[in-house]
Amino acid sequence: MNTVHTITQLRAAVARARQEGKRIGLVPTMGNLHDGHLALVQKALQSTDYVVVSIFVNPLQFGPSEDLDSYPRTLAADQSKLLDVGANLVFAPTPKEMYPDGMDGHTRISVPLVSEGLCGASRPGHFEGVATVVSKLLNMTQPDLAVFGKKDYQQLAVIRKMAQDLCMPVQIMGEAIVRDADGLALSSRNGFLTADQRQIAPRLYQVLVQIAEQIQGGRRDYPAVLDGARQHLIDAGMRPDYLELRDSVTLNPVGADSKQLIVLAAAFLGTTRLIDNLGFELN
Amino acid sequence: MNTVHTITQLRAAVARARQEGKRIGLVPTMGNLHDGHLALVQKALQSTDYVVVSIFVNPLQFGPSEDLDSYPRTLAADQSKLLDVGANLVFAPTPKEMYPDGMDGHTRISVPLVSEGLCGASRPGHFEGVATVVSKLLNMTQPDLAVFGKKDYQQLAVIRKMAQDLCMPVQIMGEAIVRDADGLALSSRNGFLTADQRQIAPRLYQVLVQIAEQIQGGRRDYPAVLDGARQHLIDAGMRPDYLELRDSVTLNPVGADSKQLIVLAAAFLGTTRLIDNLGFELN
Repeated sequence: MNTVHTITQLRAAVARARQEGKRIGLVPTMGNLHDGHLALVQKALQSTDYVVVSIFVNPLQFGPSEDLDSYPRTLAADQSKLLDVGANLVFAPTPKEMYPDGMDGHTRISVPLVSEGLCGASRPGHFEGVATVVSKLLNMTQPDLAVFGKKDYQQLAVIRKMAQDLCMPVQIMGEAIVRDADGLALSSRNGFLTADQRQIAPRLYQVLVQIAEQIQGGRRDYPAVLDGARQHLIDAGMRPDYLELRDSVTLNPVGADSKQLIVLAAAFLGTTRLIDNLGFELN
Repeated sequence: MNTVHTITQLRAAVARARQEGKRIGLVPTMGNLHDGHLALVQKALQSTDYVVVSIFVNPLQFGPSEDLDSYPRTLAADQSKLLDVGANLVFAPTPKEMYPDGMDGHTRISVPLVSEGLCGASRPGHFEGVATVVSKLLNMTQPDLAVFGKKDYQQLAVIRKMAQDLCMPVQIMGEAIVRDADGLALSSRNGFLTADQRQIAPRLYQVLVQIAEQIQGGRRDYPAVLDGARQHLIDAGMRPDYLELRDSVTLNPVGADSKQLIVLAAAFLGTTRLIDNLGFELN
């Protein structure tokens, strides 16, 4: 497994693999890899022959008051994990390599509607930054398949819509959330939690499970269900950012004919913002 | 030469050509082809083996008060000209094929700074529509080379910047303006001119030539030069939209060290908006 830092090296390595007749997979990450990321790599390895993992903490998708500077950078540990799991290439560019002329005049990709609300409401410009950098990574790698985690469910929806609208020649795949034994969704940001906060954090997932059970059990007074759940989070010591029920296919508000639902949440625990979601079906 | 109307057919035809080892060229147009367009096709044929010409009047790049409905659609005549010049494939999609879910929630690509001013000032959203549709056409065709005319100089700069920023795997080439014998830049919109207006129209180019000559002759009082030229256009019966001097490489305002200049103009003649530009060097 090689690690390269420039776009030229990435293109050359992918071109060699392509010449050998290999199908190319891409797993874009911000590094600080956990088992959730590694599951994405394994998924890509199942469907392609040469898997590129990009590691880039993309400044374009962080707001001015967000945790860009403190976001964990752990390249050596990440390389070791990726070697173990069988990735073929690590692409770890610098911000200067990705934004040689800076970010101010840089081309932007925006995905209306699906980027609005949820994380889009509390993180203005976030999905524009995500869509833009993913487009760059796709264009420089030209993979057959790119795999993203479902923990960032809205992000996955944004990327799917972008790829479809712009006719990008790539298959976008979403892979299930990987959780700790107590239910907490794996996240690089879990590392910011104190030991006490780590005890509280699984409540986020528990609340999502309770909402799904109540609705599958027949409750249709969604606002009351969500209000109750929100209060549970507050009682546990969290500060909910959003807690919403949506159609999991369209991400639109739940309509009378919605059968595939998803409840999505973001909540602060201290200064750490956790997100999670849970999809379920109505019979 | 085949004509196809769907993205699936386009991809299949290009894939066949690619399998035969051919290099692919793309010339995006809005149809109503004149010798300027055909020069782009000839340029593409010089550097590639299989040239796709797209013909699509892109609604996303027209403002609500612009000439989308009256823009000339002349597919049969265009096909005949493209056959003569040796194009390999015409891609003529419907708006529904390009925007199956409509335009409202469609992904947008914006290119800051270079899209501002000039045509960007008088046509809000125009370059976003151009960048978006060109990105789609590039992604569905995956050409090695795409050729654009320099008459739409700012458009070419927007597309170059987009392709560079987004790391698109394509070479973008600009081809010189083709003019009638009297200097008028060829344009589909020239067909909107009355016989009298057609007599006046070459003044736009003449004024650009005069500006270049004055500056190359030593004048450095650019605002006065441009004011004089603007008055010439008004005296000729035109209504100038803009008349500006820029650095032809960066499209920025002319700096002390700018050696490659370009004067760009847009002017209304009746209800028809004509654009033109002329690049020149300072010694």
